[in-house]
Amino acid sequence: MPRTAADIAEMLQAQCLGSPSREITDVVTLANARPDSLTFYKDKKSLKGVESCQEGTILIASSWAEELQKRNSDCTWILVADPQSAFLEVIPEFVSVPDRSTIGISPTANIADSSSIGLETNIHAGATIEDDVVIGERCEISAGVVIGRGTIIGDDCLIYPNVVIYPGMEIQNRVTLHANCVIGADGFGYQQKDGRHAKIPHYGNVVLEDDVEVGACSTIDRGFLDSTRIGTGSKIDNQVMVAHNCQLGPHNILVSQVGFAGSVTTGAYVICAGQVGVADHVHIADEAVVGAKAGVHKDLSGGETYLGAPAIPESEAIRQVMAARKLPEMRSQLKHLEKQLQKMQQRLDNDQTQKPAA
Amino acid sequence: MPRTAADIAEMLQAQCLGSPSREITDVVTLANARPDSLTFYKDKKSLKGVESCQEGTILIASSWAEELQKRNSDCTWILVADPQSAFLEVIPEFVSVPDRSTIGISPTANIADSSSIGLETNIHAGATIEDDVVIGERCEISAGVVIGRGTIIGDDCLIYPNVVIYPGMEIQNRVTLHANCVIGADGFGYQQKDGRHAKIPHYGNVVLEDDVEVGACSTIDRGFLDSTRIGTGSKIDNQVMVAHNCQLGPHNILVSQVGFAGSVTTGAYVICAGQVGVADHVHIADEAVVGAKAGVHKDLSGGETYLGAPAIPESEAIRQVMAARKLPEMRSQLKHLEKQLQKMQQRLDNDQTQKPAA
Amino acid sequence: MPRTAADIAEMLQAQCLGSPSREITDVVTLANARPDSLTFYKDKKSLKGVESCQEGTILIASSWAEELQKRNSDCTWILVADPQSAFLEVIPEFVSVPDRSTIGISPTANIADSSSIGLETNIHAGATIEDDVVIGERCEISAGVVIGRGTIIGDDCLIYPNVVIYPGMEIQNRVTLHANCVIGADGFGYQQKDGRHAKIPHYGNVVLEDDVEVGACSTIDRGFLDSTRIGTGSKIDNQVMVAHNCQLGPHNILVSQVGFAGSVTTGAYVICAGQVGVADHVHIADEAVVGAKAGVHKDLSGGETYLGAPAIPESEAIRQVMAARKLPEMRSQLKHLEKQLQKMQQRLDNDQTQKPAA
Repeated sequence: MPRTAADIAEMLQAQCLGSPSREITDVVTLANARPDSLTFYKDKKSLKGVESCQEGTILIASSWAEELQKRNSDCTWILVADPQSAFLEVIPEFVSVPDRSTIGISPTANIADSSSIGLETNIHAGATIEDDVVIGERCEISAGVVIGRGTIIGDDCLIYPNVVIYPGMEIQNRVTLHANCVIGADGFGYQQKDGRHAKIPHYGNVVLEDDVEVGACSTIDRGFLDSTRIGTGSKIDNQVMVAHNCQLGPHNILVSQVGFAGSVTTGAYVICAGQVGVADHVHIADEAVVGAKAGVHKDLSGGETYLGAPAIPESEAIRQVMAARKLPEMRSQLKHLEKQLQKMQQRLDNDQTQKPAA
Repeated sequence: MPRTAADIAEMLQAQCLGSPSREITDVVTLANARPDSLTFYKDKKSLKGVESCQEGTILIASSWAEELQKRNSDCTWILVADPQSAFLEVIPEFVSVPDRSTIGISPTANIADSSSIGLETNIHAGATIEDDVVIGERCEISAGVVIGRGTIIGDDCLIYPNVVIYPGMEIQNRVTLHANCVIGADGFGYQQKDGRHAKIPHYGNVVLEDDVEVGACSTIDRGFLDSTRIGTGSKIDNQVMVAHNCQLGPHNILVSQVGFAGSVTTGAYVICAGQVGVADHVHIADEAVVGAKAGVHKDLSGGETYLGAPAIPESEAIRQVMAARKLPEMRSQLKHLEKQLQKMQQRLDNDQTQKPAA
Repeated sequence: MPRTAADIAEMLQAQCLGSPSREITDVVTLANARPDSLTFYKDKKSLKGVESCQEGTILIASSWAEELQKRNSDCTWILVADPQSAFLEVIPEFVSVPDRSTIGISPTANIADSSSIGLETNIHAGATIEDDVVIGERCEISAGVVIGRGTIIGDDCLIYPNVVIYPGMEIQNRVTLHANCVIGADGFGYQQKDGRHAKIPHYGNVVLEDDVEVGACSTIDRGFLDSTRIGTGSKIDNQVMVAHNCQLGPHNILVSQVGFAGSVTTGAYVICAGQVGVADHVHIADEAVVGAKAGVHKDLSGGETYLGAPAIPESEAIRQVMAARKLPEMRSQLKHLEKQLQKMQQRLDNDQTQKPAA
């Protein structure tokens, strides 16, 4: 285990400014820096945020080398290309994370005989695996998880406690499902019949492609006949709702409390910030970014940022918000102009009546 | 099992245009139509959406008969009054859904002796039924469900895994509760006492009337002394919050992520689209429709559509949104007008000073 | 058990107006008042809400004594300083709530040998307690709860069914966690690496201080290295999201469906109404109140009320909303002004051409 700034610098093959023999006992965030702690500073444009820091060892961008040498600081600096990545690499040297151990199948798990469980997969206490489920290797099926009939799960999946997966789903490899999320509930569709909402049965499933992550208490509904699909590498935060038949592209980011109505489709690298809502059948193209709380009700072209409800391009939205702040002022201006105009009109009228008959 | 377009037409007692001997092996959505698949087209005003479809058998409204006969299409058309209903009727011929089987009570379920379970009701692995619970006939109580002391459940209810029902609730007949929803948590009420929020205990319960459906991860809180009530046939999507003492009328539709504060009341056939919020004690009258993301803070009269936060009638809201888009332009117009007015004023002043003393 | 209005008055050491011998068999809300019921009326400014009530016994503010004596009412009035508090005090005389009984550890609970469970703590059916968990005295760990490795829980905590607590959390004393909430899921943080979102591991935990309450299906994520912290006495409603590294002060109120992005900090007695969203790293100062659906994207100073998205001080927000309603009208006014100005200009031009060469 590295014990000094020099050790860390060596591990990262990086240069060290200040005392290399400084001891390091812990990794912390910048606000908590102590003489014997290691932290990181990732800003490449300003040293403002790190100026007040008088203690400890700090991973920082190499581009600051010259500037730091001019300054008088008690800190020890380790110069790296990407401070955050370097910090993430060093953390495990100081924080012990228990290795995954193969405990196998808990005696209190409820597992159908017709299911198939891969090598080194753990099934924890009270989990329920229904008929014809197939689970790959090295998966973690935590306590209280329920996996419905016929669902297929790939390798290296991490399913946290009390997750519910409805029958017939397809979960590919290295998928993470956080606690209490629900994969595959019925799509919300009804027909009006004799004054009642008659349920439209949903026969499709949900497909979570490789490396998808779904947050706690999020819900992804099954499709009507086809699959609701989350593209490879897409990451979904807590309390997100994705409705029936949605087709998300690869590497999307959906932040907490986002809601997608039915049949929404997205390209690659789409980002939706917190509490965004998207109406049914809308398409959001590659690399579009939708700002927090926006409401999207028609197709968005790619590569742009959108704000507001209804969502419009960012620059336009900001102009509107700025103008809206001026609204009360504009009302007074309007009233003032009206009065001035009236006065001028009167003056003109007077002028005309006073004018000598030419 | 029907195998040709003619078989389906016969089953639906419908007329067939094009080749009746065309084979059908699958039911699909329009976008996935193949030569041997059956799909449906429900639009009664335009054929636009189906024009590109060159293959397979399509259920379509009878009113299109004449128009279709004029066209040259390779598709086989089955003419019906309501294509979607007909399609839903045919699906089970092609998609096998396992019959409900009576498995009875799982040996790993935890069931209090004082509870009563109706005939043909299944209690799955690890479900917990507390004291004095009464459950009707033909219910499905899935794995991991917890039903609190004294709760009463009617017949033919379908409770998905890991649902939690607090003590003393009343669930009537044919109610569906999706995974991880919570019925009957405490209402969120506190009194300030000596600088602390002292909890107001909630003694009421939740009543879910016949044919109510509640989505995954939705929460319906118990009333203070009375019941929080969801009227017969009302359908609630995923991640919806209904607070203490709400009284929802029959056949309401609450789309995903809607939030109702305490003591909201609604009439019949009210619809709230996704992410709507309704303030406490508001009444929404019969057949009112509240658009996505709207914020309702006062009573809404029935039969109208409302948008925006604060929610206003749709036409007004659209006018406001359109006007808001013109805001930056209006600001320039205002400035321009001011300048023009100043100029005229100067010109008038000049005129007057230049004017010969009449 | 008290049986007459006089009994209740005696119990509360309060004065009684009207018939003291009136029998009381039940406690109800005002709308459900009957001749033999007790209810309360808390308004101290107007008797409007209680005027229509012709029956039963009513707890009311003493300040109304004189006014009530003038009126002719069949009700019996009990005069108290704080009618709601008095009512809450009386309720348990009429509504029986079963005492907490010590059932100990259910034989179907799954409890690691290395965990430690305090005196008089109940562990219900199917709960899972992992290695090195420490639980205090008189706690209720309900059915299906999962508590991860190394978590520490204080005394008198009430954990409802199917709650999931990730490893390493700290739950202090008298904390209530409602059903299906999730404490300690990973913070939602990724680094872009070779076109993929590489997970930033989160090593911190969640600390819930004394007397915190968390609603059903709410989620509080663990910090990156430090703790996500909820201050003493803070109350969180259902379906609320608090992201990684947030630091909430004491006695906050977060109403349903509120979402806090990462590293938000709050002072004491902050209130966020339903569906509020707060951007990352924002600070909300003491006693700030954020209205329903507001979107907060920069620091808010204390003691004020904020509305709108972006959130601004209440009075300003109301002026904007009012002005926005006038927008369509303002557009017409603008057009009208423009025309008038044009006309005047023409008139001036005409005047000038008609003017005799002086």
